[in-house]
Amino acid sequence: MKKFMCENFLLKTKTSEKLYHDYAKKMPICDYHCHISPKDIAENKKFKNITEIWLYGDHYKWRAMRSNGVNEEEITGSADDKTKFNQWVKTIEQCIGNPLYHWTHLELQRYFGIDEVLNSKSTNYIWNKCNERLTESSFSAREIIKKSNVKVICTTDDPIDTLKYHNMIANDDSFDVKVLPTYRPDKAVNIDKDTYKDWIKKLENVTHKDIKNYDDLKNALIDRINYFEKAGCKISDHSLELLVYCETNHDEVSKIFDNYLKGISLSETDIYKYKSDLINFFGKIYAEKNWAMQLHIGALRNNNTRMFKKLGPDTGFDSINDCTFAESLSKLLNEMDKENKLPKCILYCLNPRDNEVIATMIGNFQSEGIKGKIQFGSGWWFNDQKDGIEKQLKALANLGLLSNFVGMLTDSRSLLSYTRHEYFRRILCNLIGQWVEDGEFPNDYEFLGKIIENICYYNAVEYFNF
Amino acid sequence: MKKFMCENFLLKTKTSEKLYHDYAKKMPICDYHCHISPKDIAENKKFKNITEIWLYGDHYKWRAMRSNGVNEEEITGSADDKTKFNQWVKTIEQCIGNPLYHWTHLELQRYFGIDEVLNSKSTNYIWNKCNERLTESSFSAREIIKKSNVKVICTTDDPIDTLKYHNMIANDDSFDVKVLPTYRPDKAVNIDKDTYKDWIKKLENVTHKDIKNYDDLKNALIDRINYFEKAGCKISDHSLELLVYCETNHDEVSKIFDNYLKGISLSETDIYKYKSDLINFFGKIYAEKNWAMQLHIGALRNNNTRMFKKLGPDTGFDSINDCTFAESLSKLLNEMDKENKLPKCILYCLNPRDNEVIATMIGNFQSEGIKGKIQFGSGWWFNDQKDGIEKQLKALANLGLLSNFVGMLTDSRSLLSYTRHEYFRRILCNLIGQWVEDGEFPNDYEFLGKIIENICYYNAVEYFNF
Amino acid sequence: MKKFMCENFLLKTKTSEKLYHDYAKKMPICDYHCHISPKDIAENKKFKNITEIWLYGDHYKWRAMRSNGVNEEEITGSADDKTKFNQWVKTIEQCIGNPLYHWTHLELQRYFGIDEVLNSKSTNYIWNKCNERLTESSFSAREIIKKSNVKVICTTDDPIDTLKYHNMIANDDSFDVKVLPTYRPDKAVNIDKDTYKDWIKKLENVTHKDIKNYDDLKNALIDRINYFEKAGCKISDHSLELLVYCETNHDEVSKIFDNYLKGISLSETDIYKYKSDLINFFGKIYAEKNWAMQLHIGALRNNNTRMFKKLGPDTGFDSINDCTFAESLSKLLNEMDKENKLPKCILYCLNPRDNEVIATMIGNFQSEGIKGKIQFGSGWWFNDQKDGIEKQLKALANLGLLSNFVGMLTDSRSLLSYTRHEYFRRILCNLIGQWVEDGEFPNDYEFLGKIIENICYYNAVEYFNF
Repeated sequence: MKKFMCENFLLKTKTSEKLYHDYAKKMPICDYHCHISPKDIAENKKFKNITEIWLYGDHYKWRAMRSNGVNEEEITGSADDKTKFNQWVKTIEQCIGNPLYHWTHLELQRYFGIDEVLNSKSTNYIWNKCNERLTESSFSAREIIKKSNVKVICTTDDPIDTLKYHNMIANDDSFDVKVLPTYRPDKAVNIDKDTYKDWIKKLENVTHKDIKNYDDLKNALIDRINYFEKAGCKISDHSLELLVYCETNHDEVSKIFDNYLKGISLSETDIYKYKSDLINFFGKIYAEKNWAMQLHIGALRNNNTRMFKKLGPDTGFDSINDCTFAESLSKLLNEMDKENKLPKCILYCLNPRDNEVIATMIGNFQSEGIKGKIQFGSGWWFNDQKDGIEKQLKALANLGLLSNFVGMLTDSRSLLSYTRHEYFRRILCNLIGQWVEDGEFPNDYEFLGKIIENICYYNAVEYFNF
Repeated sequence: MKKFMCENFLLKTKTSEKLYHDYAKKMPICDYHCHISPKDIAENKKFKNITEIWLYGDHYKWRAMRSNGVNEEEITGSADDKTKFNQWVKTIEQCIGNPLYHWTHLELQRYFGIDEVLNSKSTNYIWNKCNERLTESSFSAREIIKKSNVKVICTTDDPIDTLKYHNMIANDDSFDVKVLPTYRPDKAVNIDKDTYKDWIKKLENVTHKDIKNYDDLKNALIDRINYFEKAGCKISDHSLELLVYCETNHDEVSKIFDNYLKGISLSETDIYKYKSDLINFFGKIYAEKNWAMQLHIGALRNNNTRMFKKLGPDTGFDSINDCTFAESLSKLLNEMDKENKLPKCILYCLNPRDNEVIATMIGNFQSEGIKGKIQFGSGWWFNDQKDGIEKQLKALANLGLLSNFVGMLTDSRSLLSYTRHEYFRRILCNLIGQWVEDGEFPNDYEFLGKIIENICYYNAVEYFNF
Repeated sequence: MKKFMCENFLLKTKTSEKLYHDYAKKMPICDYHCHISPKDIAENKKFKNITEIWLYGDHYKWRAMRSNGVNEEEITGSADDKTKFNQWVKTIEQCIGNPLYHWTHLELQRYFGIDEVLNSKSTNYIWNKCNERLTESSFSAREIIKKSNVKVICTTDDPIDTLKYHNMIANDDSFDVKVLPTYRPDKAVNIDKDTYKDWIKKLENVTHKDIKNYDDLKNALIDRINYFEKAGCKISDHSLELLVYCETNHDEVSKIFDNYLKGISLSETDIYKYKSDLINFFGKIYAEKNWAMQLHIGALRNNNTRMFKKLGPDTGFDSINDCTFAESLSKLLNEMDKENKLPKCILYCLNPRDNEVIATMIGNFQSEGIKGKIQFGSGWWFNDQKDGIEKQLKALANLGLLSNFVGMLTDSRSLLSYTRHEYFRRILCNLIGQWVEDGEFPNDYEFLGKIIENICYYNAVEYFNF
């Protein structure tokens, strides 16, 4: 029996151990997609206790606590931090087989030097020990990042964001990790949301331009793309909840936007056309800039109206959708490709049943001169666990070129989540090590080491031009 | 090499063996969903031969025999019992990798004390030995149940059922296993079936009430819910073959029902609205009663018209559908939740590709004060096999809290199917044991034993209030 | 650690090794579905170098090369053969976990006697050695086939094909492998393609019949079925890209065809009805002839317009679709079955998430007197790899009768692909061997050997009446 989460955690063969310890472990981290607050980094935030760092913003943990029957008061409500921590401990004890169990213990081990199991018996000990450590200067946002060997962080930002904190960080010579914005214009696309008009207003304000028609809108959005580019942005991100591609043209969509501004209500088809055209437009601009375009496909958000009214979005009431989307995705990519204006793309799917659809879709649009121009993104959100990561790696290997994969990202709101890169790397090394042990790939360590190092770090750096 | 189906069958690690033999094995059975005939229990049925108990009502076996090219005459037809048995043996020989192979041998081992392999060579020996054993008094319905350590059985019953046999059993002091009805009102919902009018007639008769409008119908249905409650019912069950949720309201649906009564044909949308409203209505009543609501999603029934005309429904011509349903299911649950009237729910999906949709959907509607209020039901029907069970357990563990799972049920028409609980428990112990051996969970046997015992028995007892 | 691709490649237990080496290895090959050119066999083609045999027609390899960023010029363009080979080697090095890696090395080992790993270092050595071997007389098309122990080859042919080469081969006593045509009338069905009218013209020419109405068309198609039958055809093949079944009747479809001939444009529903009726028509004819009908479901073809214009169809720009189809497929099969005119069918699905839908669908239409009348086809195209093959085998075993499976086919354009049968057999033996070692099936080698031999060869020979 292997010791609980020991140094060879998740590594089941000697080759896997070797690949992890000799190659993967030492590689820096390029966290090209996350939801870390740039403000926290700029201000070098410190945390008053373990509840703040673990529970103030983590909807994964909130969901688990709700599944364990905990009162909302003691999850996101006004209960005191120790009570919340106690409830979290009662929940983590029930988390056998859940990634939260492993993430939690990896964070305790790597950041707090705590090897004990978190359970009812150790609650107070760990509460005290963590809080003590958090007072140390090594527990500031920047120190955590540096300790984690992170070289690049790409945050996720609204086009109207001033990027004030990104600029502060860039101008601060005392911190040399690249913290770059990502252009995420979902709010520019979602014309069917109540908040759309407000957002357009804000866009007018930040660009000092009137938006009276579709061309004005596009110009304002380009303004912001240029602004982001100056701040070092090289990546965009789109959430495609319902992916329905409708062919259309500039004139038609201009009219749709005019109607919108006049307060005429839009049909479902109008909305699809509008979104299709805008995403197309964005893609082509990204292609010109040589940015990468991330498409996150398949979330079913805000399922619980009662709780949405109480807590708002992104609070743990989202799940996996089961829409069909292959044809629409194909048309969307093809539309850009037709004019040779398809940017580098990373396609993420939330429903693991669609891994093979994505893994074969990327093969339709690869292009000369760049390895893996179209990427199948790492196991996303609910798939960010051992089985989900392995399924994505296998689908990519079976149907594409795993060696060209840009690898892991945290997608996290927490500074302690860099351990997810370790988690991913162990799973990657375990899989490849197993293949080698089984005689399915030659045991040429020099070559294998390169594959590992590339997937862990170099592929991403080269792909994004960091 | 492990001996064929020995005491450590399906247990691949020492820890798995320990968990099964020290904890799981001894737990009683709470079979909270099955299709056992309450009449057979009330009358303490005996069986004339092994063909009667194995082949008279088991469409799983019929399907396998048809796949082996057996004449229908020798499956469900008038051939003699020995001929049918012989054909079954020829079929089971071809069942490598099929759960029927394991179920059959578990039943031979546990109930008949036969360790031999069932094949052409052993046909007559096993035919004779089984038939001999079946004459023993220990082979009555009740003795089989008692020998299987069953504490609770929930049958599946039409709202118009008199529950005569349930009451007989409840009033019989010589048999202390709880045999409770389950309220399954599919026939009250399926307004698109030819048999609907007849069924409404029967409902009028059993409630002694005229059903002249939608309110009358609802009142009659509540009458039966109350009647079932008095007989100890705590669970309902709905088969949702095509899950399309349409928002509607009482007035609209009242009109739809009026039209139906007048013989005006209903549109597809009318039918969806009608069904949506009724299921909503049921759910809210169940919530008031603190019943659990089971939703069985994704069957594609009666595919073979020629055989349907010959043999009727539930005879082995059903399969797995591939509809998309996440949004409709979300809306259905949300509609009840909005008014705080969402009952405890168990969601079963027939298409294993949808495991992750279900496993994340339950997380949207968990609730304070009860562990795992919304459950992801165990691998159902076609998924009731090693791979299917493991996939469900892993999806639940990865995306929810496995520890709070209410566990296994037989869903069976046969009294010998309690071995499926053993089958499930071995798979559960094997999975958790493997995690422990791999260092993915601490080897704290006291704690692990509790998890196993809870999933095997206590969680269900607590969840359903047995 | 196991040696790279040694004699026990993919065989992880002693029982698996025994099953492969004692039973599977020696079985002949019945390649009942492929895209080999009958001309190449008739003319006993030889190859000028390894690039010709590997890269002239293999869109699997082209896709991989594009994913590696290779210029199209050096894939399908006018670059010289050595340059193309070099680019292929650079690509294969990146193919860890991809079936191309295993296929390539199996082909090197079995046909060229080369055990070296193909990589940058061995490029020139392997280029020279392969090319040298290709000059030998043992490297003609027929010698490769004979060396591979192939007994039957079924090619894939357009109904208008003259079958000249099939007849040449049949009349040539010096070559006794059966090379039979397969009737693939996709072009007769696809009334929505621009090329339809031309094709009808060609059908008129080849049948010497005017096609003035739907009956004429059907008669011409029957003519060709009879013609194919005389050439030994026993199998048909249909690609169902978008499977939508619409009930209709002869009169309605006759009118649709009349409209088509008159140049009246057809609605989407017209097209679905037309296709539904024609496939039905074909199926019933096949049933009369006792042919098997293959249905290939779920491809999304020609995704890349830019490259389609350059290279045409089947050049590596296809992927997996995610349509729902269970109800339509059920109706299609049921329609034929109603009149007792459902032929033997093999259902292939391209999206592995649909394995369980197919594996249960076949169970709805099995029939007396023939084992496995409706078959779940082997892992197809993108699924033709270790994980894909294993998933198909497990789904079939769990939900049907694996023992009655007609087994593997190459589906390939290359004469070296017979090694895919070896690949499949190793995976099959590994899976069954594992079950035996785990005590899930008795270690009765005589019986197991029969299962293996049947799946490898005899089941197909019996099923197709070769």
